[in-house]
Amino acid sequence: MQTAVFGASGYAGGEVVKIIDGHPEMSVGFLGAHSRAGVSLGSVQPHLGGGDRVLADNDPAQLPDDVEVAFLALPHGKSTETALSLRDRGIKVVDLGSDFRLDSNDRYLRGYGSDHPHPEQLADWAYGLPELFEVADEDQVAAPGCYPTAVLLAIAPLAAAGLVDQTSIVADCLSGVSGAGRSARDDLTFGAIAEGVRGYGLTNHRHRPEIEMGLELAGVPEPRVVFTPHLVPMLRGELATVTVPTDTDVETARSVLKEAYDASPFVSVIDTPPQTRWVVGSNQAMVAVWVDEWTGRLISQCGIDNLVKGAAGQAVQCANLMFGLPESTGLSTAGWMP
Amino acid sequence: MQTAVFGASGYAGGEVVKIIDGHPEMSVGFLGAHSRAGVSLGSVQPHLGGGDRVLADNDPAQLPDDVEVAFLALPHGKSTETALSLRDRGIKVVDLGSDFRLDSNDRYLRGYGSDHPHPEQLADWAYGLPELFEVADEDQVAAPGCYPTAVLLAIAPLAAAGLVDQTSIVADCLSGVSGAGRSARDDLTFGAIAEGVRGYGLTNHRHRPEIEMGLELAGVPEPRVVFTPHLVPMLRGELATVTVPTDTDVETARSVLKEAYDASPFVSVIDTPPQTRWVVGSNQAMVAVWVDEWTGRLISQCGIDNLVKGAAGQAVQCANLMFGLPESTGLSTAGWMP
Amino acid sequence: MQTAVFGASGYAGGEVVKIIDGHPEMSVGFLGAHSRAGVSLGSVQPHLGGGDRVLADNDPAQLPDDVEVAFLALPHGKSTETALSLRDRGIKVVDLGSDFRLDSNDRYLRGYGSDHPHPEQLADWAYGLPELFEVADEDQVAAPGCYPTAVLLAIAPLAAAGLVDQTSIVADCLSGVSGAGRSARDDLTFGAIAEGVRGYGLTNHRHRPEIEMGLELAGVPEPRVVFTPHLVPMLRGELATVTVPTDTDVETARSVLKEAYDASPFVSVIDTPPQTRWVVGSNQAMVAVWVDEWTGRLISQCGIDNLVKGAAGQAVQCANLMFGLPESTGLSTAGWMP
Amino acid sequence: MQTAVFGASGYAGGEVVKIIDGHPEMSVGFLGAHSRAGVSLGSVQPHLGGGDRVLADNDPAQLPDDVEVAFLALPHGKSTETALSLRDRGIKVVDLGSDFRLDSNDRYLRGYGSDHPHPEQLADWAYGLPELFEVADEDQVAAPGCYPTAVLLAIAPLAAAGLVDQTSIVADCLSGVSGAGRSARDDLTFGAIAEGVRGYGLTNHRHRPEIEMGLELAGVPEPRVVFTPHLVPMLRGELATVTVPTDTDVETARSVLKEAYDASPFVSVIDTPPQTRWVVGSNQAMVAVWVDEWTGRLISQCGIDNLVKGAAGQAVQCANLMFGLPESTGLSTAGWMP
Repeated sequence: MQTAVFGASGYAGGEVVKIIDGHPEMSVGFLGAHSRAGVSLGSVQPHLGGGDRVLADNDPAQLPDDVEVAFLALPHGKSTETALSLRDRGIKVVDLGSDFRLDSNDRYLRGYGSDHPHPEQLADWAYGLPELFEVADEDQVAAPGCYPTAVLLAIAPLAAAGLVDQTSIVADCLSGVSGAGRSARDDLTFGAIAEGVRGYGLTNHRHRPEIEMGLELAGVPEPRVVFTPHLVPMLRGELATVTVPTDTDVETARSVLKEAYDASPFVSVIDTPPQTRWVVGSNQAMVAVWVDEWTGRLISQCGIDNLVKGAAGQAVQCANLMFGLPESTGLSTAGWMP
Repeated sequence: MQTAVFGASGYAGGEVVKIIDGHPEMSVGFLGAHSRAGVSLGSVQPHLGGGDRVLADNDPAQLPDDVEVAFLALPHGKSTETALSLRDRGIKVVDLGSDFRLDSNDRYLRGYGSDHPHPEQLADWAYGLPELFEVADEDQVAAPGCYPTAVLLAIAPLAAAGLVDQTSIVADCLSGVSGAGRSARDDLTFGAIAEGVRGYGLTNHRHRPEIEMGLELAGVPEPRVVFTPHLVPMLRGELATVTVPTDTDVETARSVLKEAYDASPFVSVIDTPPQTRWVVGSNQAMVAVWVDEWTGRLISQCGIDNLVKGAAGQAVQCANLMFGLPESTGLSTAGWMP
Repeated sequence: MQTAVFGASGYAGGEVVKIIDGHPEMSVGFLGAHSRAGVSLGSVQPHLGGGDRVLADNDPAQLPDDVEVAFLALPHGKSTETALSLRDRGIKVVDLGSDFRLDSNDRYLRGYGSDHPHPEQLADWAYGLPELFEVADEDQVAAPGCYPTAVLLAIAPLAAAGLVDQTSIVADCLSGVSGAGRSARDDLTFGAIAEGVRGYGLTNHRHRPEIEMGLELAGVPEPRVVFTPHLVPMLRGELATVTVPTDTDVETARSVLKEAYDASPFVSVIDTPPQTRWVVGSNQAMVAVWVDEWTGRLISQCGIDNLVKGAAGQAVQCANLMFGLPESTGLSTAGWMP
Repeated sequence: MQTAVFGASGYAGGEVVKIIDGHPEMSVGFLGAHSRAGVSLGSVQPHLGGGDRVLADNDPAQLPDDVEVAFLALPHGKSTETALSLRDRGIKVVDLGSDFRLDSNDRYLRGYGSDHPHPEQLADWAYGLPELFEVADEDQVAAPGCYPTAVLLAIAPLAAAGLVDQTSIVADCLSGVSGAGRSARDDLTFGAIAEGVRGYGLTNHRHRPEIEMGLELAGVPEPRVVFTPHLVPMLRGELATVTVPTDTDVETARSVLKEAYDASPFVSVIDTPPQTRWVVGSNQAMVAVWVDEWTGRLISQCGIDNLVKGAAGQAVQCANLMFGLPESTGLSTAGWMP
């Protein structure tokens, strides 16, 4: 099956290319880029090795006819027109960006501060977190953000089971720097990142509405989430720590999680604090849960690789399901440590 | 003034030596160590430079007569006898360890899982967080743990002012690896730390009772704190993110903090998320506060250097006050970045 | 084909397991360990995911009958008896350790400071650097050290072609910390590694005799190499910078390298300084060469992943050739960046 | 004594400010910047703490009358006019940049690829490496580059004593990323630096002519140096490894170095490989030397902090000498480790 990757010069796009290059049923038939269009893939992504592939323009009109699915790894706001054009041509789309993740203009406005250019389209996109929501046979899927992936895997089954106070969720999250993308910004230089941590987007990060939407999709009424992301000095990996009032005990909580992910090849419920090193490089998520009796709080942690389970791997996982392939085709469960 | 440093071969002890070496009113008259006794300071702490100083045994009997104050940077449980012996000789003591931080055997039992060997002594020690508690003229001071320092500076004045629900405090904290000390443990190798984050001590970290005690000392009734520390791949620095229900607004919260720290040379209330890089190497703490109207939560962050404001710097700050010196004598407010 | 991995609890052994787990023609039929024998693989190598595999003793007697090849990832000096025992049973062996790399007792004595326990065996082992030496149809192969791999790939073809003064080779090398293995040593803690670089083994590193032997095997008479390794604060990756007097020009040097590696799937001759990030996670080596006319020196650099091309990947590459499989079976040429 | 710092928004300029802020005899009376002119120092250098200082334009005309010495930490090519204007006003100048380091237009042309705008001025500048050259009573001093500082401290006394073949020097150097300055470049993002090493400027780095000039100034005839710098993933620190043919023995070499630096407060000759962690944060240089009998090569290593001894600290050291102050006034010999 031929695929197209838009935004192949970025971190997430490059990761899609790497995964598809090793996928037994898919090939990359089109590589799109913006400012890097015209240069070789190898000069922009030297680690991807192999061949004399050249980046084309991010232009749907240039797609070969045999492309059946397109992965969009474009900056926020840049997916919309491309996705609609591809859909018009009958090509399935997995959008790794944020244009179609939210299900209503209201939520989009709250998350992004402006109206969606095509609000009438929002309802047609599936939210591509396959452990929680149906993706099979969909034609257009919006892959979740990395933070929502980790937070929802940590807490959605517990909230859906009514075990926690969903109006009082605190999600503190830690992310490797690749989550911020590949641009050369003052605040992303090595000198601005190494040997330091910092919070950002406090009280107004755009992933909060997405997390709350995900909880609602999972059947949780009126969730409210405090979401505080932090940047830590590592390339990859993301850890969500979710704290929430509860009346349950840890055995019940753990069994609910184990049942929820029993059939999932990519989520492990473990007994120790998940380390991001254990999942970096793989499509695995590791989840662990505690109940603190002193305060009546449940704490659930989830670790993922932000570029794999939080982006490119999840996108391919969705594509597998969209085309009836086994969910884990071409996806690794083995991480890189050390 | 001559001082003694016990545990001078560790990270915190070495930091005390470095600060005193640059202190205009104090000198290091005794250097104690355990397994490294008998070797030169330079072979164990090559960065401290200077001279042919040799580490003695951690034995109070060997102290020169002119030592007026001793800094104890010893493993948990090792300070007690040393401290009592020094006090018997009329030497003032600043304990950087945890033996005398808690104010009752009950709390000690809850934090450390065993009875204190001299519970009757606990009430005689001052808790050395000078921005919140009186230290001047004390003879024996227990310097707080690094996490309690950051968490208390972030939230104690707000809780003491009744602005937040003190029974529902969530403190997620991030620490550089030096906070775990200098021992060669499997889980502290570069290969076990770099490129990863992890929580630890969930629901049972010994700093939780200390944080709650600090809040009570500040006048906060019956505080309850969920405390979740994380280890991040950096040498130094600590960031506390405290989330708690509130009815107040951000202007009120900020003005309470500004007033609380108005006379403190080492705490800055700032308007942006504090980065640990800005304070690493200095005795500064940076605090910022937000109110999230969507959830009715206040979020307060505090960044410190765990080895300076969280250990050695704070210990010297206490000693300055104990001897009537200006609080900031010999202490830097300039960090190292980059 | 069933394989055995001895030393599966270490970094190199774990990497062999990961590669074989993804190998289409090989399976891991035996997992050996020393102090960790009896525990689950997942508890020691949490990133390897999957299953309830348990580590057995590093005891050849426990091998299932269908094992055809064994990979030894054991500490120096520990391979000899195991390898000989396996050979007696007709099992092919790839030794990732240093016991059988050197071709004579003299050289072994110079490298390791003691006589080899079975010097008569040394001549029977092939030196498994397939880009330079024949490995096909061998039964027992010693995979090279990580530094010799990088240095020899950088300079052997140029020295063999007589383009440089082989008596005057300077090899300065940089290695990620995983090259030092997984033990919990004082000098390998995060606190001893992060934010610093250092040389080690100056003038007496055991890899120098191995490099000189590799040059001799490649047909270079009486080579002399100054070898200075350095440890840098990263998990993986190795860069060799080789400087040597020359009379040639850069075009000639580059064409000799390109010809030497023309048929090699794993060595790329590039035009820019190789970055270890481009090869980390893959079995690729990247080589670039310069001629400095001002000094009459040729400079050649080679970057590899010390655990893959410098250890586990190269071992599997050798095993592929030993069994007549395509050289690159189960080995990736795509790196991890970022 | 009032001082001026031009380029106070960069890494080196900020470091000068930090040192002078702690200097007992100097104060910062002027802070200049280019694009950041008009904003507060605290917003650009939050770690420097203290006060409401505002950055002015990098304009000599704006200097208060009482400024006696100016430190220029400006990009290459930007110092010339400023320095000449300051000299016209009778203000002493220490240039941390590269405009006046080389002693002739020929050398400048070779290093920088263009003619110097004021070649007639070059002879009037002292080369400010006080351990090797006289700086006292100079009015205009060019502080050396970081690499030349480390390489010259490692090898100049040995070459000047005729102990090595100065036509055959190989200098492989490793630098932390702050050496590349503070600009937001694609190749300096965390994602481009972490977990990787790379050489750069092979055969054509502009510091080579400066190193050779320094050797000539030290009395070494016709030196030739292969200079290969590498970037390693750390913020600070620089290590030079210099390899060169020799007929001497290690005792002679070490005694020459010890004698050369006997009176220097900032250079330690040690017996073990210098670790950059031991000197980072201080103005110390650590030097160690080996002789490899197998190859007849001497190897000398020098570790420094590129921003202190390699830039700002050395500049202040020069200024101390220019004004007759003790050389080490206001400069630390204690590093930051860990």
